[in-house]
Amino acid sequence: LRILTLARDLRRRKSREKQALFVAEGVRALEELLASSLQIRGALVAPQLEGAQRGAELAASLASRGVEVLKVTEAEFRSAAETESPQGVLAIAEIPVRSLDELANRDNIRLLVLDAVQDPGNVGTILRTAAALDVDATIALPGTVDLWNAKVVRAAMGSSFRHWTFHASVGELGDFLHGGGIELWGADMSGEPVANLSPPGKLALAVGNEGAGLSSSLRERVDRLVSLPISGKVESLNVAVATGILLYQLRK
Amino acid sequence: LRILTLARDLRRRKSREKQALFVAEGVRALEELLASSLQIRGALVAPQLEGAQRGAELAASLASRGVEVLKVTEAEFRSAAETESPQGVLAIAEIPVRSLDELANRDNIRLLVLDAVQDPGNVGTILRTAAALDVDATIALPGTVDLWNAKVVRAAMGSSFRHWTFHASVGELGDFLHGGGIELWGADMSGEPVANLSPPGKLALAVGNEGAGLSSSLRERVDRLVSLPISGKVESLNVAVATGILLYQLRK
Repeated sequence: LRILTLARDLRRRKSREKQALFVAEGVRALEELLASSLQIRGALVAPQLEGAQRGAELAASLASRGVEVLKVTEAEFRSAAETESPQGVLAIAEIPVRSLDELANRDNIRLLVLDAVQDPGNVGTILRTAAALDVDATIALPGTVDLWNAKVVRAAMGSSFRHWTFHASVGELGDFLHGGGIELWGADMSGEPVANLSPPGKLALAVGNEGAGLSSSLRERVDRLVSLPISGKVESLNVAVATGILLYQLRK
Repeated sequence: LRILTLARDLRRRKSREKQALFVAEGVRALEELLASSLQIRGALVAPQLEGAQRGAELAASLASRGVEVLKVTEAEFRSAAETESPQGVLAIAEIPVRSLDELANRDNIRLLVLDAVQDPGNVGTILRTAAALDVDATIALPGTVDLWNAKVVRAAMGSSFRHWTFHASVGELGDFLHGGGIELWGADMSGEPVANLSPPGKLALAVGNEGAGLSSSLRERVDRLVSLPISGKVESLNVAVATGILLYQLRK
């Protein structure tokens, strides 16, 4: 039952940070987790996994990898799962240890900065997009949902296990960018249209909260504000869509 | 109680189609609905609206517009609402009658075609994106979620009330595009990279189901397949993000 207790405990951000562990839920996420280099500590399996597509193969893969698998009831599973997980499978894995400093020496670099982006589904979709568009790393500033939240991990569809992510303060980010000679551009409706700009070799793009935009502390540090001109009749784009278009426009 | 019965009934697609009515839920959607030219038939209000942000103003606006407002209990409201609607307000409005033929005479035209795109949240986000990027209309082919589904309307954040949308068969779409001299491009991983292409003046872009891609019947009719090159490590982009990037690249 240690795994069940641990999984329940890991629904709290503080517990994930303290133990450097996170939970991945669902067949798709676990397949991606098994294909990654991350260390798996254990798994919970509920009866409904037998009926899920590719469920039997997944159970066999977990067993063949020597992962400790605990069989629980549907109710016990629900008590540990964060997302709607009709497939009845989750795993506990180690949050990978990575260092921003390894990135700074590259000639070309693209970073994404999330400034108080709160919706876990949007943030997961953004991580998936950043990985697909060859962004080197995503850095979450205070106010952003924990990137190891189970809903974020699920929406990222495996990208959390390969794409590099960090949490940092505005000060830490500023010091790192300054030391690496990396420009910081911020997305804002008042900025220059992105289509008119040529990005520098080393660039970090910051996107803000859908309602409030960039925080004032970040706004003070940006080298340039950039925008996507949109129809006057529409208030804004979804933050994941806007981030995708900007990252594509500013790709290496 | 007529409005309550009607709202419950409109959760079925057949009922929406037969009565040419739909349901919009939540404060934001209703504000947008009131600002649009659509006809409102009635509204349901639950006690929790009083505690919602801008709830009191919205109730006053509905009353001043002469909309029939029925006060219901929280349980009755839940029995009619499709989405998680903690704000306790929904309205029934008329699906606007529009004709594709009005669009065909324009010199420059951008259309979006949804080919069996099923997730209501993604489809709503796509409508919001299409409206923001000045797409003239979105056409849903069979297999796509009903564009007047309450979850789609909610995710579209008001764009459903202004952006033109249609449901059509592949045959109807083909005839319309042919008659109007409009090229049809389809999004597919095997297509030409979109960054290398200049779009024609009259263009329809088709995007398919996230899992299955474009249907074979549509694939037979496209003039060209186009792609967004992504990292080999990632299987695909989210369909709303991919659609946003493609529409931006191919804008007028």
